[in-house]
Amino acid sequence: MATYTESIEKLIERLVKLPGIGRRSSERIISYLLDAPDSDVELLVNAITKVKENVRSCKICHNLSESDICAICGDSRRNHSVLCVVEGPNDVMSLEKTGTYRGLYHVFLGSIAPLEGKGPADLKIDSLLSRVQHEQIQEVIIATDSDTEGSTTALYLSKVLKPFGVQISRIGIGLPAGSNLEYADAATLSMALESRRTI
Amino acid sequence: MATYTESIEKLIERLVKLPGIGRRSSERIISYLLDAPDSDVELLVNAITKVKENVRSCKICHNLSESDICAICGDSRRNHSVLCVVEGPNDVMSLEKTGTYRGLYHVFLGSIAPLEGKGPADLKIDSLLSRVQHEQIQEVIIATDSDTEGSTTALYLSKVLKPFGVQISRIGIGLPAGSNLEYADAATLSMALESRRTI
Repeated sequence: MATYTESIEKLIERLVKLPGIGRRSSERIISYLLDAPDSDVELLVNAITKVKENVRSCKICHNLSESDICAICGDSRRNHSVLCVVEGPNDVMSLEKTGTYRGLYHVFLGSIAPLEGKGPADLKIDSLLSRVQHEQIQEVIIATDSDTEGSTTALYLSKVLKPFGVQISRIGIGLPAGSNLEYADAATLSMALESRRTI
Repeated sequence: MATYTESIEKLIERLVKLPGIGRRSSERIISYLLDAPDSDVELLVNAITKVKENVRSCKICHNLSESDICAICGDSRRNHSVLCVVEGPNDVMSLEKTGTYRGLYHVFLGSIAPLEGKGPADLKIDSLLSRVQHEQIQEVIIATDSDTEGSTTALYLSKVLKPFGVQISRIGIGLPAGSNLEYADAATLSMALESRRTI
């Protein structure tokens, strides 16, 4: 069986570990890297190293940050009495893009801090409860995914948060904006019916 | 507009330059990198650097190599009187996987050696003609792609090679093995008819 040169095979072996990258796309990426100026490849390599060195999680909300406290938690113009609970840093980005949410976040970092040796569930919920207890939180918006896992988490959260007397809400689940009812799947429609609002 | 941290944005900027990688897949790759052990990321970074440092093109056939002469050109058990002309190193890999070709290659490297400052067409064809002239080549198999570009190249090659009196052939073009005639496109079928053989 024919193989590429040793260094190329080793790089393919590394690239296929990345999400969404197979052998074929590795080969295309390597062709690109071989053609690219040395300086471009150096910039890529440095950018990877920098991310790994600099990015950590915010000590308050666990969002990605390059300092102890992230830009959102450190922003005094935001509403520090509302917490939006999300599953990951990408969810924060999605909500920020809407430009309509001005409160703070609490990120269930999941796998980003496995070094602590704690089960992710323990870690995240403990720190959330502590924030609700010690900060002046008035409302917690649960914005976990609408899949089984996310819904279960939302249900569990609403239960453990209840004793603290904060207002708890779950983001609306139903028909996506701009979509046709006839193309919506049954699960979405049944959720949309359940979360109907009087108008 | 919300953005990730500075290092992450810089890495996204670099990753989206890679073929087949968009902003969304960059984000997924970065999540993976942040979760991965430091040693894994180091291995990836080293593998990229090694490829860029070690891989060059074979001085004879322009295939990818980590020494001046590639493993195929340096293999005395192969038939040094047959040359297969292909467009890129990936094509060499595909043909090698068949296990049926035992001759040598000539790779039209295209963009991998732009540093010489020569137009790729000039460079490749000159070195091919020189091989045909100075090595004991008896047959040249043209295995360029079956698209317009590849076919034009094949036509041009057959013209410039003719004066050297070597046998020139073009790989078979037609119905792929194991496929249904009714699903083949018209261009493929007309090529298949043209390249029919008496049996």
